[in-house]
Amino acid sequence: MVDLVHDDTGATLTLADPLPLDSGRSLDGVRIAFRTYGTLNAAKDNAILLCHALTGDQHVASPHPATGKPGWWVRMVGPGKPIDTDRFHVICSNVIGSCMGSSGPAALAPEGRPYAMRFPVITIRDMVRAQVALLDALGIDTLHAVVGGSMGGMQALSWAANFGERVKAALVIASTSRHSAQNIAFHELGRQAIMADPQWNGGDYYAETGTDPRPDPRKVGPESGLAVARMAAHITYLSEQGLTEKFGRRLQDREAKTFGFDADFQVESYLRYQGLAFTDRFDANSYLYITRAMDYFDLAEEHGGRLSDAFAGTKTRFCLVSFDTDWLYPTSESRRIAHALNAAGAPVSFVELSAPFGHDSFLLDVPALDRVVGGFL
Amino acid sequence: MVDLVHDDTGATLTLADPLPLDSGRSLDGVRIAFRTYGTLNAAKDNAILLCHALTGDQHVASPHPATGKPGWWVRMVGPGKPIDTDRFHVICSNVIGSCMGSSGPAALAPEGRPYAMRFPVITIRDMVRAQVALLDALGIDTLHAVVGGSMGGMQALSWAANFGERVKAALVIASTSRHSAQNIAFHELGRQAIMADPQWNGGDYYAETGTDPRPDPRKVGPESGLAVARMAAHITYLSEQGLTEKFGRRLQDREAKTFGFDADFQVESYLRYQGLAFTDRFDANSYLYITRAMDYFDLAEEHGGRLSDAFAGTKTRFCLVSFDTDWLYPTSESRRIAHALNAAGAPVSFVELSAPFGHDSFLLDVPALDRVVGGFL
Repeated sequence: MVDLVHDDTGATLTLADPLPLDSGRSLDGVRIAFRTYGTLNAAKDNAILLCHALTGDQHVASPHPATGKPGWWVRMVGPGKPIDTDRFHVICSNVIGSCMGSSGPAALAPEGRPYAMRFPVITIRDMVRAQVALLDALGIDTLHAVVGGSMGGMQALSWAANFGERVKAALVIASTSRHSAQNIAFHELGRQAIMADPQWNGGDYYAETGTDPRPDPRKVGPESGLAVARMAAHITYLSEQGLTEKFGRRLQDREAKTFGFDADFQVESYLRYQGLAFTDRFDANSYLYITRAMDYFDLAEEHGGRLSDAFAGTKTRFCLVSFDTDWLYPTSESRRIAHALNAAGAPVSFVELSAPFGHDSFLLDVPALDRVVGGFL
Repeated sequence: MVDLVHDDTGATLTLADPLPLDSGRSLDGVRIAFRTYGTLNAAKDNAILLCHALTGDQHVASPHPATGKPGWWVRMVGPGKPIDTDRFHVICSNVIGSCMGSSGPAALAPEGRPYAMRFPVITIRDMVRAQVALLDALGIDTLHAVVGGSMGGMQALSWAANFGERVKAALVIASTSRHSAQNIAFHELGRQAIMADPQWNGGDYYAETGTDPRPDPRKVGPESGLAVARMAAHITYLSEQGLTEKFGRRLQDREAKTFGFDADFQVESYLRYQGLAFTDRFDANSYLYITRAMDYFDLAEEHGGRLSDAFAGTKTRFCLVSFDTDWLYPTSESRRIAHALNAAGAPVSFVELSAPFGHDSFLLDVPALDRVVGGFL
């Protein structure tokens, strides 16, 4: 029997069995919130799993329930779009560890109080295990494709490496097979900003909400620290060139410098806004857990140290896309993956696209990406 | 009459006249703490002014009085070294706004309480004006050279642009003529981390020390926020390649990941250490003021919008040095300055050195830099 509840912003599955984790622990009563678009055909072979990024969610092509903003990939997913919901059944689930309905530190533990820092540290592969359980519950054996950008690409790679027999194709955009020292450094900076905030309080900042399975993290917690963490992340999402083109040294709504500490420059105003807006929609502890999972990600290490061994004997076909201005997960990282796939004898196409937006390019208006995605699928 | 007090870690000048500032304000009773190395000759024409970087100080080639560590450029400055104190009289003064004895937010205002955020916002040119006043007091009309790396290079450029008739040569290392949007973004991140710390308290965190002209900022204040700011800065000081070579994904004193939030990775441990150690020696408000001065720096803007106009008619000869792995102030920025100097008809040599250490290269073991510095002087 499948415990599946639908509401007007999607559905939530509760797993009957404990979910085993890379840490050796396991998690009881895992909840997986997800959305679907398009229709599953009778053969159940037209499903595409979309994997979201660090602060993403399952609301790919429909408004975000908290902010009311359009889905984060509405330009890519829909009828007649590159990921064509007239042809494909698109599934996107909120990763475990997150805060949009799936089990995470803000969710209630079995005894009725939020997990907070009692939530186990998870990995990218653990997120994928939860997705596998979701597909099992939905009766979908094989995916037409798994698709993801950034952390979503890590999940797509982990799918191919660990559950390759269930994935016909993997599309990995602006991603990496392992977090570099610099990647870890930026995440650690964000975590320290959150944990330095007295409101973090060791992670115990949730309102005791009793029966609400998803406590509202928005009115309490380390908002200042989380905003600083988000500011750091945003710097890495844009290229130096992109920041210069977008803001340069232009002043914000003023004719001259104020010789003070207000946001004189547009780039300051932008970062402050991004930091504050983020605290309205994201849980600080989830930020800790998901960044940790990303830092732990090293697909080669998981497979004995050689990346090509992660894909030994794979029948999945791959498409890798990088962006020339992405300095978070630069082209060289995609090239490493392409070389490993070549060494493993896997069919792979790899393209570096030119776009001025840095890492964020995968979410923005890059028509060449649309063509690559549509063509590959 | 010159109000000049010597002690065993240098000397301090107190200016008789108010110091005019770019903001239109002026500052009374400015104190300038400085150190000298080598002997001023009778003609007073062998003086070299060294300008320090953001968190540097006047203790160039002698132990830091707070930390006991060797001077920050002891490898470059001394008898027989590239900046040869057998030949030159080397002067380095703590910039105004800082916290090592010169006037800054931690210093006492005339009425006896620390300035805190009542200290005026200053600019790089204001720092230079204080240095000019120091040279006047010392009776030194013309500098053999002004030398600086990073923010020190900005001061050297500002000297040449605004007081060029007093500077025979300017050596500008790993610097820029203006802060880019990305530069501003990283600084704003640091400032927000400090100001988000409740201990910052609007800048009023100093112990009331009565007669001590330099309150000890070390036991109070926004240490957590300042540590986060320093972590962000350190990421920008090292190259991605440098971080990879230095740390990679190596674990810190453990065999396996802990599945927790301790510093599993060496790079995390490094950043945490750098953040904490910094709070022992630096004042958070000074960090706000000096980063603001750097963000405001745009030498072209100061001179009508064209960088070459900043150097019109200059007789100063220039040497510019950049490092190929410096992404904070990349080679392209030095090249811009070189082009502007060419357009102004100034004699300039420009060299990009190869070094793996990123922006920090100017402080580290780069023998090629020693040769360039020694050769130019």
